[in-house]
Amino acid sequence: MVNFTIQDVLIAVEDGYATVDVQVVDGKIAAIAPNIELIGTAIDGKNKLLLPGFFNAHTHSSEMWQRGIMSVLPLELWLAELYDFAPLDPEQVYLSALGTAVETLFSGGTSVVDHLVLIPGQELETIATAVRAYREVGIRAFIAPLIQDESITAGMPSGESTPIHEPYFRSTAATLEIIEEAVRQFHRPEEGVNILVAPTGIQLCTDALFAGCSELSDRYHLCRHSHLLETKAQEKLALEKYGCTAVAHLQRIGYLGDRTSLAHCVWLTDADIAILAETQSTVVHNPLSNLRLGSGIAPILKYRQAGVNVTFGCDGASSNDSQDLLEAIKIGSILHNVTDLDYQYWITPQQAVEMASLGGAKGLNIADKLGSLSVGKQADLVLYDLTNLSLLPRTDPIGLLVLGRPTNVVASAWVNGKQIISNGQFTTINVDELRQELFNRSQWETSRKSQTVAQIEPHYRTVMGL
Amino acid sequence: MVNFTIQDVLIAVEDGYATVDVQVVDGKIAAIAPNIELIGTAIDGKNKLLLPGFFNAHTHSSEMWQRGIMSVLPLELWLAELYDFAPLDPEQVYLSALGTAVETLFSGGTSVVDHLVLIPGQELETIATAVRAYREVGIRAFIAPLIQDESITAGMPSGESTPIHEPYFRSTAATLEIIEEAVRQFHRPEEGVNILVAPTGIQLCTDALFAGCSELSDRYHLCRHSHLLETKAQEKLALEKYGCTAVAHLQRIGYLGDRTSLAHCVWLTDADIAILAETQSTVVHNPLSNLRLGSGIAPILKYRQAGVNVTFGCDGASSNDSQDLLEAIKIGSILHNVTDLDYQYWITPQQAVEMASLGGAKGLNIADKLGSLSVGKQADLVLYDLTNLSLLPRTDPIGLLVLGRPTNVVASAWVNGKQIISNGQFTTINVDELRQELFNRSQWETSRKSQTVAQIEPHYRTVMGL
Repeated sequence: MVNFTIQDVLIAVEDGYATVDVQVVDGKIAAIAPNIELIGTAIDGKNKLLLPGFFNAHTHSSEMWQRGIMSVLPLELWLAELYDFAPLDPEQVYLSALGTAVETLFSGGTSVVDHLVLIPGQELETIATAVRAYREVGIRAFIAPLIQDESITAGMPSGESTPIHEPYFRSTAATLEIIEEAVRQFHRPEEGVNILVAPTGIQLCTDALFAGCSELSDRYHLCRHSHLLETKAQEKLALEKYGCTAVAHLQRIGYLGDRTSLAHCVWLTDADIAILAETQSTVVHNPLSNLRLGSGIAPILKYRQAGVNVTFGCDGASSNDSQDLLEAIKIGSILHNVTDLDYQYWITPQQAVEMASLGGAKGLNIADKLGSLSVGKQADLVLYDLTNLSLLPRTDPIGLLVLGRPTNVVASAWVNGKQIISNGQFTTINVDELRQELFNRSQWETSRKSQTVAQIEPHYRTVMGL
Repeated sequence: MVNFTIQDVLIAVEDGYATVDVQVVDGKIAAIAPNIELIGTAIDGKNKLLLPGFFNAHTHSSEMWQRGIMSVLPLELWLAELYDFAPLDPEQVYLSALGTAVETLFSGGTSVVDHLVLIPGQELETIATAVRAYREVGIRAFIAPLIQDESITAGMPSGESTPIHEPYFRSTAATLEIIEEAVRQFHRPEEGVNILVAPTGIQLCTDALFAGCSELSDRYHLCRHSHLLETKAQEKLALEKYGCTAVAHLQRIGYLGDRTSLAHCVWLTDADIAILAETQSTVVHNPLSNLRLGSGIAPILKYRQAGVNVTFGCDGASSNDSQDLLEAIKIGSILHNVTDLDYQYWITPQQAVEMASLGGAKGLNIADKLGSLSVGKQADLVLYDLTNLSLLPRTDPIGLLVLGRPTNVVASAWVNGKQIISNGQFTTINVDELRQELFNRSQWETSRKSQTVAQIEPHYRTVMGL
């Protein structure tokens, strides 16, 4: 492991910025102070800003194959289209994991939570492939294999009908065995690869699946992840299914806690919010996906006032359709200014940066090791070039980074002290080859028709009163 | 003028895409068809998408000097801070006009409507400076000198108090004389430089100023521009001031029409919307600014259903804080999916492109000459590189461009047939020198205090019920 010292770099401090040197020894931040001893390689930090790496705290990497082409539809119908055309080749999973990691790192993210869609019948191979890709890039990976044990039609409220759903193709027990095997084979936190338990959400999972996941989580010290109340339809479904809100139910079955992160959280009641605060669960805000799918605006200012930890995700590239974390942070900050007239509660750029870094670490229960520039923490760091046109003229560096539209601004990035980007170029993988592969394995498409959407759309419109 | 033929390029057609050649002769599109004769220089269009140039239909170029540093405040207070620190040096106006043009062109815009803030006492020099900058870059410029004839405190609703406002420092007649002189000196539509009449809005302008502008507009065939109902406070103010809505008043005094474009339009009633449709006025949607300032979500889907023409603007870089038109188009499309449950009305990427191009041309009353790839129209064109990582894997090119986060994708751009960008580089100005100048004339700032905000904030909070 190479030690290094970043010299003369701007960092954010209590009342603004300071110019300091930052020593990194054995993958950890060893010292932060002006004009300290050079240890290891010297890195020129002049006219650059150093921040802790952000967390892309919710995405689905293989959705990259369908970005740009998904119809303009709400989640329930969109999902049907998505699965009609899902990639079924592990090599695709590999390339889209690389692509997701590259875009995340180029926008300041050093960790990714990949709620990974598994190829049926090749579940462990899918996970192994994603692990391989993330190890090659060097990003810190939190792989959350997406599991369910009910079939897709169960995910919609039934309205007045008495629904009969096909059983899911794999048993709950078999699914849990796959996850346990994945933990044994791949869960290596000290090497930057983590497996999470991640039932997709109350809409497609039985209590037995949630309970099995909680049990694995306790036994192997795994973080827990799930979608939660992304759409109005899911709110309706929860009431049908449980007679209470989804949050109340998840609390009752013991799924919430300080290592549980929940993606979306758009349709929560005030009582639900109090439960999230009490259980110290984390909300992962995916503002662009929530807009693209018309899911709604998550009540993020309420969460913050209630003391709920909030961080950001890009969500999968079929519902965003980019993996640019700075874009998610910008929109996830300013979007809420229209929800509360009192600007004293609006999210400042400095707060947004803390949500994206420390907030992400908290959601994965590793705030003691990551998420801030603190001596003793692991060196997941990003160095931004402040001489880039998109960050000029010079004003407040974090204001420019969060509220502007930074382009090509990541000069260097390190994960656990290992340099992944240097002079704006990846040191670990060949991005040009990746680009070529993505090009060769795809073609421009203009239209396609989803059979499943055609089948379920009439019912969806009826239930939603359209 | 150099003639050229773009060969083997993708263009959007009724049912998807076609690969064609596009001939440009004497600055106009002469032919569009597969495999036609090469006229002039050959441009390789392979793996590229050709679109008509977009319009950045509302911005304030000199706000670039304060991007990133403006406090998180609603418009009325934000404006006070903005003017406390406004640039007063024409050289700054020159550089920020260059910067605005560069960022607009790099994101697909070939026209800019600059609602230009005038330096007091140097009004004509400010306009001359912006004209010089835009001519140097080669962007099509619509310069709308921002004028008012009431002082800033008049822009807030009075509530229960009986307000007395300082008179504005310059008379209405003197202001109108400046605009007329600017028209004589600089209005040269055939050379790509246009002057617009542009009272800032009902909140700071008398009827006399609107009437004078209408008169100049009629006499010199000038387009008309204005802010309109950006905030809830302006809605209140209009009712106080006129006893009717701002739109009803503007119709009464004859300011609306098919060459009138109105920025923001957040707080309109259904009756107001019908007036905009009837008068064929254009709405310029500035979604990022409306979020940043907490102004609200403009009812864009209602406008479209009522037949009102809508196009996009970045707004000034102090309220956005970028001039990336693709970002404005993306957010301005997907933002409205949360306002209407029925996805049949949501804006598709193809519709968004039409709004940004033809919609912009309509708003400036030049849809007969610009805004689409049509034989006989002027060649304001942008060629996008579809092999860029941010546009891969290949799916629907326009879907990727609008819903993704394209970075460095503009390969070439032409205005009136003149090439401005070639191989991703400006041919007309030295962007690196511009970057250096912006760097040298600024410094990183962390905090500053606006005296005016401190003065007016208590009144604002009272009137707004905070």
